[in-house]
Amino acid sequence: MTRTIVESATKTAVIGFDEPFCVIGERINPTGRKKLAAELEAGDFSTVEKDALEQVACGATMLDVNAGVVYNSNPNPNETEPPLMRSMIELVQGLVDVPLVIDSSVPEALAAGLEVAKGRPLVNSVTGEEDRLEAILPLIKKYNVPVVAISNDDTGISMDPEVRFSVAKKIVEHAADYGIPAHDIVVDPLVMPIGALATAGQQVFELVGRLRNELGVNTTCGASNVSFGLPHRHGINAAFLPMAIAAGMTSAIMNPVRQVEMEAIRAANLLMNHDDNGTDWIKFGRVQDAITEGATFAEASTAVNSASAGRGRRRRRG
Amino acid sequence: MTRTIVESATKTAVIGFDEPFCVIGERINPTGRKKLAAELEAGDFSTVEKDALEQVACGATMLDVNAGVVYNSNPNPNETEPPLMRSMIELVQGLVDVPLVIDSSVPEALAAGLEVAKGRPLVNSVTGEEDRLEAILPLIKKYNVPVVAISNDDTGISMDPEVRFSVAKKIVEHAADYGIPAHDIVVDPLVMPIGALATAGQQVFELVGRLRNELGVNTTCGASNVSFGLPHRHGINAAFLPMAIAAGMTSAIMNPVRQVEMEAIRAANLLMNHDDNGTDWIKFGRVQDAITEGATFAEASTAVNSASAGRGRRRRRG
Repeated sequence: MTRTIVESATKTAVIGFDEPFCVIGERINPTGRKKLAAELEAGDFSTVEKDALEQVACGATMLDVNAGVVYNSNPNPNETEPPLMRSMIELVQGLVDVPLVIDSSVPEALAAGLEVAKGRPLVNSVTGEEDRLEAILPLIKKYNVPVVAISNDDTGISMDPEVRFSVAKKIVEHAADYGIPAHDIVVDPLVMPIGALATAGQQVFELVGRLRNELGVNTTCGASNVSFGLPHRHGINAAFLPMAIAAGMTSAIMNPVRQVEMEAIRAANLLMNHDDNGTDWIKFGRVQDAITEGATFAEASTAVNSASAGRGRRRRRG
Repeated sequence: MTRTIVESATKTAVIGFDEPFCVIGERINPTGRKKLAAELEAGDFSTVEKDALEQVACGATMLDVNAGVVYNSNPNPNETEPPLMRSMIELVQGLVDVPLVIDSSVPEALAAGLEVAKGRPLVNSVTGEEDRLEAILPLIKKYNVPVVAISNDDTGISMDPEVRFSVAKKIVEHAADYGIPAHDIVVDPLVMPIGALATAGQQVFELVGRLRNELGVNTTCGASNVSFGLPHRHGINAAFLPMAIAAGMTSAIMNPVRQVEMEAIRAANLLMNHDDNGTDWIKFGRVQDAITEGATFAEASTAVNSASAGRGRRRRRG
């Protein structure tokens, strides 16, 4: 049974076929967020703090941390990313206890993150490109950490799922050469927008099954890609996630501060028998009740978590 | 490729592996609706009319018609159901153009419905009980219509999915003895409440795959059973339906006048590549927009359908 172990200093999360779906919070990422990039350039980390706390309150299993800024003062990410990654990892792991995902296309930034991250973080990502494999896999081996493998290579992203499967297989084989086991590789089979490619959903559902059965790996995806360019995207995402879970997908990189998608995932966990006694579903119901009374999803989630923690403390003292 | 053809006088609906999910509207049914039963006893069919129109507006592919009343004046369904079924079928097929499902546990009521129904209705249902097989299958053969097969038998409903699969297989084999092909049998594998049986979801997803691959039959279910007894049932149903669709389920008997569930089904159709160019999803978006502006789901659906019909007419005249 494939289990990918990811740890913070105090908390272990398992991505696995018999585990609740792993929600990797995507918000701590300045890519495409000019305001956040400017804040980071000015040394203001208040949005990062807010994003960290809100995502965990809303149910993120792990937090992705990406420091891919383009500063006005310095447009070279090879210089800006490593120190910023270090600062952001230190900040976030001081604030929340969930495991972290170190996310960069700059190998030096991954190395910087790995130096300071406590526990066993997940690295995001390696691809099938030769230079990426050579740059990233030794780091993975050195730190004995799991890695997200994205199924594109030097020829780009193939629209043919057969090619994407082959790329994933190649990465798993290269990793094995380094002594990295398949259970430490989380494959992203690449979800295409359904509006551009009508078979995008079916491709993913089939690929996830093959990756699981033939390569024995966990899987992830950028869940919102599937609805890109279409109206009422949340409705599409909220159906896609349970379908992907039923097909065997074990994690997604996504925004957890979205009630509709998180409700779909909680329900899917229940329906996959990954929510003992429906405990999480019933707790999530209290969040929904608070929203009906006017709270935002983040507010309601925070309040319900505090109340649960309070009850927990009372029980331990009783 | 398994295709179950169901017809009204003017319209054909296909239940099939490569078709949009078939939504069988369940509302025209006095079981557990005392007010409706009393109305029917008094000869008042206004609720039936409203339920027929609303369900079709909201997206029902077919309408189930059940005349299972218990009259104050006559508690014997063998006497009350056949004439009422006749009246209800005639009323509903005069009002809407979707194919009908004749639903009764009284064979004489099924026969009465079959006598008056135009086109090729679906019969709901036969079970694996010996006396039911003997009573229903000859009717199915005589009228050359498809039938829902519920996978319980003289021993009751088994909690063991292996037994339920065997019962379905037995029904398919008995039907074959009558010359009824597998593509005219729509198996209901029986969905247990997840609150009572934690593996209920996984059971159904696996059974649907086996019924499809090993018996070549379409499948259906009472979709809302899965969430029985739990809070926030719509959220569970709205995840269950896409998961069942991804697993290969091709229809459900359900209340179509529910935005959350119908949105999940529309999105799942899109993700299964059963919605050419996303036409239905984009149309459904107009319904959602109208709801945001204050309309009920039934009102918004009716308005969007009328507008589409209007546009269609203009195009034909243009």
